[in-house]
Amino acid sequence: MKVGIIGGGQLARMLAIAGYPLGLDFVILEPSDACSTMLGEHINAAYDDEKALAELAEKVDVVTYEFENVPASAVDFLDGKCPVYPPVQALVCARDRLNEKTMFRDLGIDTAKFETVDDLTSLRAAVEEIGLPAILKTRTLGYDGKGQKMLREDTDLEAVWEEFNNAPAILESLVPFDREVSIIAVKNVSGEMAFYPIAENHHEEGILRLSTSQANDPVQSLAEDCARRVLEKLDYVGVLAIEYFQVGDQLLANEMAPRVHNSGHWSIEGSECSQFENHMRAVIDQPLGSTKNIGYPIMVNLIGELPEIPAILSIEGAHLHLYGKAPRKGRKIGHITVRGETEKQMQEILEKVQAQVK
Amino acid sequence: MKVGIIGGGQLARMLAIAGYPLGLDFVILEPSDACSTMLGEHINAAYDDEKALAELAEKVDVVTYEFENVPASAVDFLDGKCPVYPPVQALVCARDRLNEKTMFRDLGIDTAKFETVDDLTSLRAAVEEIGLPAILKTRTLGYDGKGQKMLREDTDLEAVWEEFNNAPAILESLVPFDREVSIIAVKNVSGEMAFYPIAENHHEEGILRLSTSQANDPVQSLAEDCARRVLEKLDYVGVLAIEYFQVGDQLLANEMAPRVHNSGHWSIEGSECSQFENHMRAVIDQPLGSTKNIGYPIMVNLIGELPEIPAILSIEGAHLHLYGKAPRKGRKIGHITVRGETEKQMQEILEKVQAQVK
Repeated sequence: MKVGIIGGGQLARMLAIAGYPLGLDFVILEPSDACSTMLGEHINAAYDDEKALAELAEKVDVVTYEFENVPASAVDFLDGKCPVYPPVQALVCARDRLNEKTMFRDLGIDTAKFETVDDLTSLRAAVEEIGLPAILKTRTLGYDGKGQKMLREDTDLEAVWEEFNNAPAILESLVPFDREVSIIAVKNVSGEMAFYPIAENHHEEGILRLSTSQANDPVQSLAEDCARRVLEKLDYVGVLAIEYFQVGDQLLANEMAPRVHNSGHWSIEGSECSQFENHMRAVIDQPLGSTKNIGYPIMVNLIGELPEIPAILSIEGAHLHLYGKAPRKGRKIGHITVRGETEKQMQEILEKVQAQVK
Repeated sequence: MKVGIIGGGQLARMLAIAGYPLGLDFVILEPSDACSTMLGEHINAAYDDEKALAELAEKVDVVTYEFENVPASAVDFLDGKCPVYPPVQALVCARDRLNEKTMFRDLGIDTAKFETVDDLTSLRAAVEEIGLPAILKTRTLGYDGKGQKMLREDTDLEAVWEEFNNAPAILESLVPFDREVSIIAVKNVSGEMAFYPIAENHHEEGILRLSTSQANDPVQSLAEDCARRVLEKLDYVGVLAIEYFQVGDQLLANEMAPRVHNSGHWSIEGSECSQFENHMRAVIDQPLGSTKNIGYPIMVNLIGELPEIPAILSIEGAHLHLYGKAPRKGRKIGHITVRGETEKQMQEILEKVQAQVK
């Protein structure tokens, strides 16, 4: 079987690496020489280039994508030409914070308080309703903390709104969370579902730095329950990630990603079957693989610059994943999976790795 | 860094899959659309095409190969243009059974009795010396039991020699072995060495069917000791496999392969660092990865035809590796790594897998 991937970054790269052993071939639609394009046939064109999309549909059995900012028009264009997973309704939902939060609320999944903001008047009304501090977020195209602004008592709302350049936004209450967790869920075409142990995530400057896999965590079943509702509601196929704020025993759904997710990268060595392989199994409708942990995994992101490679490769229990991307400030250029046979051993290896990673 | 691979079969495919996470890129020299050519830049030319070899050397930092039948002239041509690992002397030795066995003997490594055979007269003399039954093998180009003939008391030597078409050969005594084992050894450019737990190998019709990884096996240190002598003697770089017959406590070296080896394929899931990743680390001179087992791994080859894929993917603890090759009688088209947390669990999973594999 041949799988088309829209988007050619590190997620496409890791999907292809996981998919070849299943006997799959890949065609990658990507308008640059991004880091996955050597791993399959490369259609070098814009994501919404209809000629290229037609070529892609012609060549493959199924199309998936590695990021939620794929133009919905592209997925619409493919509709009827070949299956596209995750389905377009997941994309439409996930790319717009308002749709996403509204769906969570409709499904009885808790979220932070939120109000829609379309102009300065509705911004002032939302601040009145939610109180300060609060966070203003663009409804679309935000990632890694981009398109977000913290509003405090002394914030000049007019200046902020000017900065947002009238982009449709939502205002969210600031949640005094105990921790941030996420769940990687997966559902195949036939409806089989599986859930990885939740990850506890640690960010710096809005960018994920560290994800630990929490087997037997007390909020696992709550996180799964919310994810199951979303998978079913959206008639979902593929890997879905949902990020939550935990406050006490409560989980507030923050956002979802209709794709493999950075907070599940530890699954390559840390799970019987990685999120990448399971995404592939899901979209070609094969039985899902086990999401059971192997030992104690944790993931460290490499942001902006590379560590000393020989030093990392010398650490037993550290597994390097470079994305083939040029280092640049704030850019995710790789990750390291640390795996120990015991939690203590994992911590010891982690310390050695963190001594090398900036 | 960019690595050139001569040969584009499943070994090149698994080398590339293991190498991308190290940040490597690949150029593959292969005169067909073999199953690895989508995984890197493909130079579609004969292995001894000097123009293609010059292009390869120009494009990459180091060249390696996936099979020992690379023309020595190709490696000679590359000499001085870019590093080639394993070194040419390993290739020259491994591709000729007489050179190989002679080196083993010179290093004090036990082998079956052997005599060189160049014509019918020397064949008769060799039979006289070694006795029957014995095995006549072509000196070069044999694999998976091809180019071999068992000689018994009633064998018509003249007819056999005609069948061999005057190909230089050696006659080897038939060893009444207890089992066949192999070791995967690796040495990097700087001289660091590592050894995997030996594998116990089970063949049918000359083709490897099953390899078990034997942690703490009584002959481990003997197997390592022989491999170390060969690595040092040949100034070796990369993965080297040596196959042995075990008779009582004795190991008789049968043959070596200057490359990653089928009897080490379980290392993808069964080792901290696979033979493929370690070969890559060795040729780019990085520290070697741990060869420690993760649980209890065993490998089942898929020969000639595919099993029911959904049935295999439904077995927890079974890891499928398809090579993207069309099924054909006697052809290796994939393998399955079985891994259990205990030996008993591994056996249970193995039984489920074997019920599906012909």
